Amino acid sequence: MENIKLTSYDEVAEILRECDNVTILTHKSPDGDCIGAGMGLCLYLRSLGKKANVVNDEEFPARYDFLIGDYKPMNFKEKFVISVDISDTTLLGDNLAEYADKIDLCIDHHGSNRFFAKKSYVDPQASAACLIIFELLEHMGAEITLPIATNLYTGLATDTGCFKFQNTTPEAHIAAAKLMRIGVDFEHINRKMFDIKSRNRIVAEQRLVSGMRFFEDGQIGFLTVTNQAITEFHIDRSELETFAQIPLTIEGVRFGYTIKQQEDKPNTYKISLRTTDADAAAICGELGGGGHLRAAGCTVEGKLREVYVKLLDVTRKYL
Amino acid sequence: MENIKLTSYDEVAEILRECDNVTILTHKSPDGDCIGAGMGLCLYLRSLGKKANVVNDEEFPARYDFLIGDYKPMNFKEKFVISVDISDTTLLGDNLAEYADKIDLCIDHHGSNRFFAKKSYVDPQASAACLIIFELLEHMGAEITLPIATNLYTGLATDTGCFKFQNTTPEAHIAAAKLMRIGVDFEHINRKMFDIKSRNRIVAEQRLVSGMRFFEDGQIGFLTVTNQAITEFHIDRSELETFAQIPLTIEGVRFGYTIKQQEDKPNTYKISLRTTDADAAAICGELGGGGHLRAAGCTVEGKLREVYVKLLDVTRKYL
Repeated sequence: MENIKLTSYDEVAEILRECDNVTILTHKSPDGDCIGAGMGLCLYLRSLGKKANVVNDEEFPARYDFLIGDYKPMNFKEKFVISVDISDTTLLGDNLAEYADKIDLCIDHHGSNRFFAKKSYVDPQASAACLIIFELLEHMGAEITLPIATNLYTGLATDTGCFKFQNTTPEAHIAAAKLMRIGVDFEHINRKMFDIKSRNRIVAEQRLVSGMRFFEDGQIGFLTVTNQAITEFHIDRSELETFAQIPLTIEGVRFGYTIKQQEDKPNTYKISLRTTDADAAAICGELGGGGHLRAAGCTVEGKLREVYVKLLDVTRKYL
Repeated sequence: MENIKLTSYDEVAEILRECDNVTILTHKSPDGDCIGAGMGLCLYLRSLGKKANVVNDEEFPARYDFLIGDYKPMNFKEKFVISVDISDTTLLGDNLAEYADKIDLCIDHHGSNRFFAKKSYVDPQASAACLIIFELLEHMGAEITLPIATNLYTGLATDTGCFKFQNTTPEAHIAAAKLMRIGVDFEHINRKMFDIKSRNRIVAEQRLVSGMRFFEDGQIGFLTVTNQAITEFHIDRSELETFAQIPLTIEGVRFGYTIKQQEDKPNTYKISLRTTDADAAAICGELGGGGHLRAAGCTVEGKLREVYVKLLDVTRKYL
């Protein structure tokens, strides 16, 4: 394995210009950023006459249909594999696990990236994988079409909480300005991604928030989504990731945990952590996970009570 | 009355350079944009050695304390009056009503501006009054200090729903990028302005949403805040304006009304309208109000049932 760290867009551009028959991998539990970066890059490669596909562990959730548009998979003999927005091969998911040691190029913005690919371009300062793809395409003099711009804007907006979170940079705003000028329907996208909720969803949120547990004078908040709650409140599993921001919206909470019971493994909980000022990646790192400074995740095994105790034990060190 | 319409920053800059002993008026029920524009402009004028104050119909709400900082009113004999973010003198409020025919310069971004001042600079394309002030200061080669930048960023973010609403422009993003580079603590500001809610507030929202009324297949949504609800749910009146976005977050709603009973006049309701695609200013205009394309307001008299009927009658023409 070469494990080369690329440090300039020139190097990445050269690789992109030369590659063909490309499979682009996105991470499991896909979000706007990995889909946007994957689709944006794929559409660009296709516009150069290359063959390229975007794949995922499962189907992309319906709420991102507007990103997929009229994209259809192509038939070709794969010669090159790129991963986008993936920090670790465990995030490929079971159906893409076979790619773990076959990734030629990794493009990512996670500080916790494990450099599993032959060549990696990782910029932890970038607000989103989509920002890297945007700057790369701009660097390459690409014609950024409206479908590409729509994908890149969406990833940029979703990963920054619509330019609200700590990871937002001046460069993210400048990219947004340029993508808007291409005609991206940002109003519609932002409403869809951030604002609109079904009445069902509103009731579900109300019930989950009512059931929240708080510790250490309300600095630590646990929002728990059990399988029973998912059934009872008609929650769509593909929307689970969108609950992660809720705990931090409550006054006084500095460590906002969302604790999601796994469908097939009732003693396994997927944890999302959002923090106001503490290092979320470090906390989740202690539990075998990782992520960004203010947004990270991990998986914890045990009964719910035991999970709470494990999370509290680690979190108290960061109070 | 001269009623001159200014069309360039050069003209406004010349006026600002020459004026002194300035009172800056902000609108009643003050929001982040009028406070940010007023304070930003005031701090700039003071930095030039001029005397300037920002005034309002009442005290600025406590949630904007971080914008006021260590600002203190100065004593001087007033020689010049500027209004910011005010489209009509009725928005001055009772305590500033005496200024109605004494405004030398109006700086505003409302298409519904009534040109009540001697000279007016009105740019309905500007996302916020703060964007006009920012571009003006930049045009004048001003040194934009951190307190000025904090004020201008806050108005820009609050008036665009953190760069989410239809009124967001590429120019707004570019201004945000520049203001961030000055060191604005945008993460803290956005959390405070958009995300953090007390547990009380969350319960209040839940109860108000549960009581919403829907019409025309859910396209029209009424969220009603009576005086009784304000008491019962411990709602702070100064936070009432922040409820306006809620109705439009519900799937299917195209006309989101917030209907607020007035404290001292139980048969008077202050209406906020947010729309997804209809002309909110036109609808509220039919009821004697005004505002922006997607965000407008008016006041309707009558019993609650009669208010509903009046709003429905007008809205149905825009379905």
